[in-house]
Amino acid sequence: MTQDFSWLHRGVAEIFPQPTDSDSEVDSLEKVLATTTRPLRVKYGIDPTGAEIHLGHSIPMRKLRAFQDAGHIAVLIIGDFTARIGDPTGKSEVRRQLTQEEVAKNAQNYLEQVRPILDFDTPGSLEVRYNSEWLSKLDLEKIQELLSTMTVGQMLAKEGFAERYKKENPIFLHEFLYPLMQGYDSVAVEADVELGGTDQKFNIAVGRDLQRHFGQKPQFGVLLPILIGTDGVQKMSKSLGNYVGLLEHPAQKYQKLQGVPDHLLKQYFELLTDLSLDKLPENPRDRQKLLAQEIVRQYHGQEAVTQIEAGDMPEFSLSQVQFPAKLSYLLNVTQLCKSSGEGKRKIQEGGVRLDGDRITDVDTSFQEAKELYGRVLQLGKNKFVRFVN
Amino acid sequence: MTQDFSWLHRGVAEIFPQPTDSDSEVDSLEKVLATTTRPLRVKYGIDPTGAEIHLGHSIPMRKLRAFQDAGHIAVLIIGDFTARIGDPTGKSEVRRQLTQEEVAKNAQNYLEQVRPILDFDTPGSLEVRYNSEWLSKLDLEKIQELLSTMTVGQMLAKEGFAERYKKENPIFLHEFLYPLMQGYDSVAVEADVELGGTDQKFNIAVGRDLQRHFGQKPQFGVLLPILIGTDGVQKMSKSLGNYVGLLEHPAQKYQKLQGVPDHLLKQYFELLTDLSLDKLPENPRDRQKLLAQEIVRQYHGQEAVTQIEAGDMPEFSLSQVQFPAKLSYLLNVTQLCKSSGEGKRKIQEGGVRLDGDRITDVDTSFQEAKELYGRVLQLGKNKFVRFVN
Repeated sequence: MTQDFSWLHRGVAEIFPQPTDSDSEVDSLEKVLATTTRPLRVKYGIDPTGAEIHLGHSIPMRKLRAFQDAGHIAVLIIGDFTARIGDPTGKSEVRRQLTQEEVAKNAQNYLEQVRPILDFDTPGSLEVRYNSEWLSKLDLEKIQELLSTMTVGQMLAKEGFAERYKKENPIFLHEFLYPLMQGYDSVAVEADVELGGTDQKFNIAVGRDLQRHFGQKPQFGVLLPILIGTDGVQKMSKSLGNYVGLLEHPAQKYQKLQGVPDHLLKQYFELLTDLSLDKLPENPRDRQKLLAQEIVRQYHGQEAVTQIEAGDMPEFSLSQVQFPAKLSYLLNVTQLCKSSGEGKRKIQEGGVRLDGDRITDVDTSFQEAKELYGRVLQLGKNKFVRFVN
Repeated sequence: MTQDFSWLHRGVAEIFPQPTDSDSEVDSLEKVLATTTRPLRVKYGIDPTGAEIHLGHSIPMRKLRAFQDAGHIAVLIIGDFTARIGDPTGKSEVRRQLTQEEVAKNAQNYLEQVRPILDFDTPGSLEVRYNSEWLSKLDLEKIQELLSTMTVGQMLAKEGFAERYKKENPIFLHEFLYPLMQGYDSVAVEADVELGGTDQKFNIAVGRDLQRHFGQKPQFGVLLPILIGTDGVQKMSKSLGNYVGLLEHPAQKYQKLQGVPDHLLKQYFELLTDLSLDKLPENPRDRQKLLAQEIVRQYHGQEAVTQIEAGDMPEFSLSQVQFPAKLSYLLNVTQLCKSSGEGKRKIQEGGVRLDGDRITDVDTSFQEAKELYGRVLQLGKNKFVRFVN
């Protein structure tokens, strides 16, 4: 095990607990990493709610990979059971419960998307666990035991709950189960470390309490920042349109990353690449270009970068389009599909994207050329055109 | 089925729901009783926490018997599962969790005590059910479903919780399970009616909600008053010393009931006897005596009344006792036991009572005669003496 922990600290918001003068029994995570005689079990839990993964989600996943590269075990928890309840963290509304089928499909989908980030190949380096394995076996007596470790006051102090309670928005009792279930996951997999966004501190701390309750050494929490989106203002989120999705076309990613505001570039390099921050180009345009190149390279390889920079993005002139234009007609006229009928089928199958957003409504249509100008129409993974004048 | 419902209304504090002008779909319980083509299932749940049963506890039990006598089915729920959590109703502190062994022993003990009240003999008239039967089978998914039917706000509005929350006394999350489990009992046994003290309205209403959630017709609630103790001030409670225990010696019961304050007599007759309230004696002393006779008759038969009134309570003069006096020595000197050694064993076995209170500490001793004057020392069910000067 290496004694250089720059890989651990890069981009990290907080590691807890920290040894303090008042509690000399707590070792630092660095000390544990330096002295451990076995690989540590590093947990990261994901909620297979069907959201498309974007660069913001890749941050803890990249840290998980860093632990793998340092010789530790990534324990990726697919919250197939918890997803059906929903994490109320940061939500001001109660979440719709997912069906078992939706969760299974979403979990599979998620694993496909993170395949480029994690090490799936080195033997023993990755454990993928579904938390239904242990949570579906809990009985009322055990659940009562979990519930008895916390008070209503502690739970209502949690960010999200506190605001909802103050606003007199209903908090349903089953929502209290979420942090305890996430915490019990740590007990079940005997986690040494749990990774999460800074909004996960409460849930990770609950895991520590439950591990202590069940006689285990409490895990360390490694908290990672929430990524600001390409608008430079709000957190990256598909619904805000300021995101770069892992499933987007390389050219689309390249284009969006070239537009990342200058004040965010350092954080993007720190969180999303392994490049040395001391050696970034001085010119902001060059920095943006390097960021785009580096991230496209990570997900699609150097060849994709070269292709994009050679201008290989096929273009299609809007002067050839008759308006109003149905999406199925556009797929045909651009020759992505052989007929409007094939276009309709592809739309229904979920294979059509505009600027990376999947469109499944076959009746989607456009009234004027300016609605399409500069946008990329994509079929499947490899076929796409950009609309030009 | 009879159309005279005086048996139903006698001593009842509230029956809910009541038909209202605004909700004409709700039938009255009387109408349901008059028109039902099958016996109703009348639930009463008890918490086998080991408390000795007193006349206060007998009130819902007597109402359950009245339903049995009218042809309905008493469904007595032994809360062997819930007792291990504890009903927080009216408690300002969280309750210690009982072990499985304690609960099993207490449940058996309880059934013995209520045997004189309920009809255990008419076939089909009594179902005794342990709620571990269904509660031990609940999994996290089902528990989540139960929890999702209520909000934190609704739960904190419950009497007991509200005060504790306001005082910032801790409310542990598992306490929220109690009303839901009691409510789920109603679902499991398909209750048509649930009996309870007036402090049970919330829990019985939760049962109605859960029955509705699971597609059943919601039960009626029949609420019975909480009995004021023989001090005429506070609710009857063993710890307040103002109680008449069902296990107490007939002479002890008789003596205590002769002291019930005049202003309580009418309520005692109404709740604890079947006597017509119009025909009570005019003289208060006569009323007290009639109450004592009637209740001793219920539990021990007319012969016991006759014996007591003939002065058959053996007496023992305190002048024959040397102080300080150990309890085991007292058992020997009064000839209840053949030796102090036998006395010790009986104390350890739990067979010794003073004024109806079981004493299990073999080192119990008394310093002066006045500590014992007028009190009844009892061995087993049938051997006893009263200490006199």
